[in-house]
Amino acid sequence: MNPRNALNFSGGPGALPESVLREVQQAIVEVPEVGLSVLGISHRSDWFAAVVDELEHNIRALLGVGENYHVLLLQGGATQQFSMVPMSLLPPDGAPADYLHTGYWSGKVLPAAHREGPIRVAWSGETDGFRHLPSDETLALNRSAPYLHYVSNETVEGLQFHRVLGHDNVLRVCDMSSDFLSRPVEAERFGLIYAHAQKNVGPAGVTVVVVRDDLIQDAPQGLPEFLDYRSHARAHSILNTPPVFAIYVVLLVTRWLMQDVGGLAAMETINRRKAERLYAVLDESDGFYRGRAAERDRSFMNVAFNLPDKTLEQRFLAEAEAAGLSGLKGHRAIGGMRASLYNAVTPEAVEQLADFMDRFRCTVSMPAHGATGVR
Amino acid sequence: MNPRNALNFSGGPGALPESVLREVQQAIVEVPEVGLSVLGISHRSDWFAAVVDELEHNIRALLGVGENYHVLLLQGGATQQFSMVPMSLLPPDGAPADYLHTGYWSGKVLPAAHREGPIRVAWSGETDGFRHLPSDETLALNRSAPYLHYVSNETVEGLQFHRVLGHDNVLRVCDMSSDFLSRPVEAERFGLIYAHAQKNVGPAGVTVVVVRDDLIQDAPQGLPEFLDYRSHARAHSILNTPPVFAIYVVLLVTRWLMQDVGGLAAMETINRRKAERLYAVLDESDGFYRGRAAERDRSFMNVAFNLPDKTLEQRFLAEAEAAGLSGLKGHRAIGGMRASLYNAVTPEAVEQLADFMDRFRCTVSMPAHGATGVR
Repeated sequence: MNPRNALNFSGGPGALPESVLREVQQAIVEVPEVGLSVLGISHRSDWFAAVVDELEHNIRALLGVGENYHVLLLQGGATQQFSMVPMSLLPPDGAPADYLHTGYWSGKVLPAAHREGPIRVAWSGETDGFRHLPSDETLALNRSAPYLHYVSNETVEGLQFHRVLGHDNVLRVCDMSSDFLSRPVEAERFGLIYAHAQKNVGPAGVTVVVVRDDLIQDAPQGLPEFLDYRSHARAHSILNTPPVFAIYVVLLVTRWLMQDVGGLAAMETINRRKAERLYAVLDESDGFYRGRAAERDRSFMNVAFNLPDKTLEQRFLAEAEAAGLSGLKGHRAIGGMRASLYNAVTPEAVEQLADFMDRFRCTVSMPAHGATGVR
Repeated sequence: MNPRNALNFSGGPGALPESVLREVQQAIVEVPEVGLSVLGISHRSDWFAAVVDELEHNIRALLGVGENYHVLLLQGGATQQFSMVPMSLLPPDGAPADYLHTGYWSGKVLPAAHREGPIRVAWSGETDGFRHLPSDETLALNRSAPYLHYVSNETVEGLQFHRVLGHDNVLRVCDMSSDFLSRPVEAERFGLIYAHAQKNVGPAGVTVVVVRDDLIQDAPQGLPEFLDYRSHARAHSILNTPPVFAIYVVLLVTRWLMQDVGGLAAMETINRRKAERLYAVLDESDGFYRGRAAERDRSFMNVAFNLPDKTLEQRFLAEAEAAGLSGLKGHRAIGGMRASLYNAVTPEAVEQLADFMDRFRCTVSMPAHGATGVR
């Protein structure tokens, strides 16, 4: 295989496991049990029904939820969920739902949700530039809100919640797009979890929704079928032609998680070790590498950091690229650097990045940059 | 490559050209000009912006439309367009739009459109079981309708319009999902054309919308962004993470159409020859193979037919499968047989199918089936 794929730190679409890429490559020519290219198999075939069944089962097993949760495989990305959630769960003339504004992505949710009904921004980190997340003490949540919505991991700023938020008597809705299946999450404490595939679980083009079955029954009538969770649940995600290829790749990733990695607790151990290795590089760099996030709220998925100045940042990116390390440029909204350490990024790849960062710091003549604030 | 892929007559997702499958297989490991797997490249990369640019350009060039048409690459399939079209183009309290009900798929459009505003079924073929399409004389269209909607090719019944319908002063909206880029279509006579990819142009998961730019300006305000053509047009189809892989495959198919096939007129010649070959088998079978569609309205994409009885149909399918010919089972809505002859199905493959059908007819003892209506 191509060694550059192993050193892809892209914020998403992100790297996939090498063993999965090999299986996908084979499936482009021939899915072994069918004898046809995965791109030319009918979504009404027995084979594809079995793919969907196994994937639903794998996701329930990995998350530890029962059959009372639907697993839906939808199109439209997390963006479509920003609207579908309030369309189904937000009474137009009841109490507002609580939304947390903790970074770029949870900010994108707000106007979409607001269009569908009453919401309240229960907390915002905007004034400090989204460098930390709320503690339980600073969160004044409404105990009679129809639901609480939050984003578990802010990809752009590199912030991640390391606990379940809110009260158990208020429905939890969580956008887990960027840390889905990267760690155990006590999924039964959530009413609805959604995650697009293109960070940890597959290619762009499919979004997983895990929703407790009683919650979608009372959605308003008259929604277009493709925006109604009930229609997708009844059709077992084959309401119309689904993205067969993307769903098949997600199935392969769940098999890899279960069989090769050994489940979400094992995955978390690996992901935690990777992130800790990189944060140690930051913390031991005498302020050369500056992490964006408050230490307590650091993401294990996305390590966002700055260098002393923009010239050095450009040079860092160019030399990293030349060394085969790709995808390290920060999100266009905030700039800087970002190393994304999704499931498929190996500890060895992180070791190579850490080595590169240490070497880069040494080769930069420190006194020359003293004026820009390096200690 | 796998020889079975060449004999895939599936109704969709359908076969793709072998040269495209080879390029896709390579891209799973490494897109040559990037050095990374196509599944791990950011949608915000320069490479992907160039993919979208080239694809927009190729589709305009193939259809012969100018820059005044947006080419949008959306998710949600044709099903999402059933709703998006009236959401944007149907005034809630004006004259109803004219819809033609010519088969299974145009029937699926009706409730979705009706939910969004006033529509009128201007013609229906339901009473004769959708065996023919309307002639111009039998069509009484409203010259002040906001638009006329029809489906150019009915995949299930094997019916296809071989002319442009309607009046030039009424906006034409056409679902070309199953014959898009299979022939020249005088695209500038249409206001909006939509087509999911999984018949002639790529894998399931992306839908192409070609829309004249003046038409989307007056859509109602307040639509969710992902349902508003304007947002997608402004974002050049990268409003949120698009299905990168599916879009890349569609680009490869358009390159194949332009460079290997030589454009849509050349493609039409090939497709016409393929269909005529198979219809000749039907017509020269002494009534053994019975085509569903009226001769004038026969589809060049989907040849739907029956055998004298269901037992023979089962045997036909089993022997075809054993001979490596797959995907010949008719749509679950009407049963029978269906050979789909999308762009990537080669004349050689059709020749093999025709030979198989002739042989099958000969091996069946004709007198034994005389009672079931064979002449």
